[in-house]
Amino acid sequence: MSPHDRSDPSAAPARHTSTAELDAALDAAVAAFAALSSLGRSGRARLLRAVSTALEADRDDLVTTCEQETGLPTSRLQQELSRARFQFEHFADVLDDGAYLEATVDHRGDSPAGPRPDLRRMLLPLGPVGVFGASNFPFAFSVAGGDTASALAAGCPVVAKVHEAHPLTSASSFRAIRRAAESIGVDTGILSLVHGQQAGTELVRHPAVRAVGFTGSLPVGRLLADVAAARPDPIPFYGELGALNVVAVCPAAARARGVDIARGLAGSFTLGVGQYCTKPGLVLIPAGPDGRALRKALITAVGEVPSGVMLSERIAGAYATRSTALAGHAGVTVLAGHSDRRPVDAGGRHGAPVLLEVDPDQLTGDLLEECFGPILLVATYTDVDQLRSIVSRTGPALTGTIHADGTDSEVSRIVLDILVGRVGRIVWNAFPTGLAVAWATHHGGPYPASTSVLHTSVGATAIRRWLRPVCFQDVPADLLPDELRDEPVDHSLARRVDGTLRVTS
Amino acid sequence: MSPHDRSDPSAAPARHTSTAELDAALDAAVAAFAALSSLGRSGRARLLRAVSTALEADRDDLVTTCEQETGLPTSRLQQELSRARFQFEHFADVLDDGAYLEATVDHRGDSPAGPRPDLRRMLLPLGPVGVFGASNFPFAFSVAGGDTASALAAGCPVVAKVHEAHPLTSASSFRAIRRAAESIGVDTGILSLVHGQQAGTELVRHPAVRAVGFTGSLPVGRLLADVAAARPDPIPFYGELGALNVVAVCPAAARARGVDIARGLAGSFTLGVGQYCTKPGLVLIPAGPDGRALRKALITAVGEVPSGVMLSERIAGAYATRSTALAGHAGVTVLAGHSDRRPVDAGGRHGAPVLLEVDPDQLTGDLLEECFGPILLVATYTDVDQLRSIVSRTGPALTGTIHADGTDSEVSRIVLDILVGRVGRIVWNAFPTGLAVAWATHHGGPYPASTSVLHTSVGATAIRRWLRPVCFQDVPADLLPDELRDEPVDHSLARRVDGTLRVTS
Repeated sequence: MSPHDRSDPSAAPARHTSTAELDAALDAAVAAFAALSSLGRSGRARLLRAVSTALEADRDDLVTTCEQETGLPTSRLQQELSRARFQFEHFADVLDDGAYLEATVDHRGDSPAGPRPDLRRMLLPLGPVGVFGASNFPFAFSVAGGDTASALAAGCPVVAKVHEAHPLTSASSFRAIRRAAESIGVDTGILSLVHGQQAGTELVRHPAVRAVGFTGSLPVGRLLADVAAARPDPIPFYGELGALNVVAVCPAAARARGVDIARGLAGSFTLGVGQYCTKPGLVLIPAGPDGRALRKALITAVGEVPSGVMLSERIAGAYATRSTALAGHAGVTVLAGHSDRRPVDAGGRHGAPVLLEVDPDQLTGDLLEECFGPILLVATYTDVDQLRSIVSRTGPALTGTIHADGTDSEVSRIVLDILVGRVGRIVWNAFPTGLAVAWATHHGGPYPASTSVLHTSVGATAIRRWLRPVCFQDVPADLLPDELRDEPVDHSLARRVDGTLRVTS
Repeated sequence: MSPHDRSDPSAAPARHTSTAELDAALDAAVAAFAALSSLGRSGRARLLRAVSTALEADRDDLVTTCEQETGLPTSRLQQELSRARFQFEHFADVLDDGAYLEATVDHRGDSPAGPRPDLRRMLLPLGPVGVFGASNFPFAFSVAGGDTASALAAGCPVVAKVHEAHPLTSASSFRAIRRAAESIGVDTGILSLVHGQQAGTELVRHPAVRAVGFTGSLPVGRLLADVAAARPDPIPFYGELGALNVVAVCPAAARARGVDIARGLAGSFTLGVGQYCTKPGLVLIPAGPDGRALRKALITAVGEVPSGVMLSERIAGAYATRSTALAGHAGVTVLAGHSDRRPVDAGGRHGAPVLLEVDPDQLTGDLLEECFGPILLVATYTDVDQLRSIVSRTGPALTGTIHADGTDSEVSRIVLDILVGRVGRIVWNAFPTGLAVAWATHHGGPYPASTSVLHTSVGATAIRRWLRPVCFQDVPADLLPDELRDEPVDHSLARRVDGTLRVTS
């Protein structure tokens, strides 16, 4: 039985991975590292496209398994699987493009600081990495998610910690990816699964692991980030956590389309039963009739949203506790929803939407922290100074949203200037849930939005998390990676040569 | 008295900065942040070039002050000041080029994962940052060093912790930079100095500090990295520390030019009294007559190198203790130098070169750790398997050097493959001391070479340490940074538009 077979979770998905099994998974990953590197960009692009094909081939099984396991609606899962496939294809495009390598050639020369040898720099894969699946995206942020796709694209074998909310989906995803690897003759040690909290912590501590990607809650993310930082050799820990996403509705926008904004907001914060890290958590609306109309429409819209099945009993329980506590805060009143009683069915997994109003002067402490679930706080500002003051009090976040119309240009610029300093993505006249996979995507932000403010977990540049620069000084051409030779095979590769960025070399 | 005046160190350079003074320095930095950002790339390029001019204008004073304070030779200081100037000019070129912003525009469109809004991404400055000056480079890695230059280029105000080995040089550097800022009307809060160990630790903990750059020893670097990681909001800590740099001499190279290699090595490990993080610490030479000739030439060359004044009594004392301990290890014999007695003058700052021979089988533990000072270990390998085994035992480092000639191609490729996985820079047929400032430079590596394996402290890409991505979704053109508009003022800016990297937009 190979080490890969030992870590195959399909036999007993609920069990816990032992230390010996974890070691075996890492041994397999270390052994597969050279193979994955030597595939080159084109070989890894082929691998990623084969994974996309395998996920499509297994679509019915994957969606059915996941639906039974998570309770998430079929349509959502169909869409999420398409997204997961697209991520593999997008990173294949990133590999074909090759600019992510930052290939840079400085021929021997002189500088004001003295003579300069021949220097050539590019990014190389870090080695085996750990990936933690998220509860709320069983496909797109789990075993077949963006962390895995970007790490494999970079050339880093993955040991994935399965989220206990969807072990069967993880096992099915794993089989599809392994089949894709086998179909093009790649060492299947490029991906292993591990189970259980203890194995997760040991994964972050394991000497062979060179970096970790994580999507999940602030407490668990911070705990694991601290483990990574306390290693004898600290390694990068990319935790996409989450925070309170603020939505500022400027006066003219409230006047022009307050009801539309209210309906959009109600849809956004209750989407997926509020279990998105991009969920709006606080909306700021203007005082006066336009704001009151928006508020009224929001109450109506929220009243029409049914409760939904949450991802797990633990999550539903935490939402019940937290939302009840927020509703009981000084300065907070319940506008809509079930927070006059427990907002979930006792002992069940249902979570009901909650809309709270908060006095801006009381907006501090845990009212400014993320609450995972379908809850939204509403605060009313009387003038631009108070709006500025409230926005300035919010912490870093993944997103910040502004609704503005014609005469809002001054006030919207003030809000934008503050938000640009503290969020990863500015959303304009839309809602923050929904995150496109693209070249320009950024999904991150200052802590606690992310544990790594420089990096994104979604979009083309997510690949950079798994790469480190290496400089070759005077190394002979035949020992250089092809991308650094004077005449690389891929002539279309973007490179910087003697200080000038060239798209065709 | 402005906060800047309060943090002006020229009055009493040896004192310790109080918490109130540190706060004032950060208040000034926060206030200067917007001004530095709004200068734009061209304004900051002008600032950096003005700094270079100011450093040149003060050259005599800077070099004289530094010589008196550090005991470093004038010629070296002249050269280092030129290097420091060049770093400011190089980052001005990086700003003019602008590709470092990674400006990316994805117009609204469709994707296999659904419709995509207009997304535009670029890098923005993090905010005020802390910079720790190094003992061994009073210009190029201190107040007027690469961390300061790259941070100001990025748009981040700097609070610099002065190294206690050269407070007067730091004060003079500070005055030159401030004068440059004043000459072009930039808020002088862009740079403040703080003094003392306590203020340094508080700087890393300070809520207004968004990242820290550090060059120095492993123990201090790790201590401060841990402080950064333990903050309520962890921040990036870029510690350029150091490790054992290995030099592998392949058989044909030893045969063809063993004596030259020996002389070059002797010069490299004793350069600057061995006080460079790129100093070679271990050389591997082949058994047999060629290796013996090299070894003999090395002993001769080392015997001709006089002792030198080290940077401080503390450093000289540590070198004495550590080199004596290494010489006393099992399997170690003294080939040359003064390690039969203390290798420094008792109570003084002189450090004498030491050459030790080590049995490869005994090469473990602290023999594989950096020893700061003019000491080199020699190990002899009998065949390629033993060479591979020794190289595999060395840890991550800033550099790895290979000397190879015609028939060494197989053995050199084996060594290269191992070193590429663990060092930041491969040096071919040269010596690792000496590090050019260029676009392709990388000065870093896996821990403990650096606390941040993805980043460099030298070269064009050092600017990235101070930048974070922000994505603008559907934001109107007039509120976008110019670099993200459909028609940016700078038409030569490299951008990726709808997936295609374009050098002229």
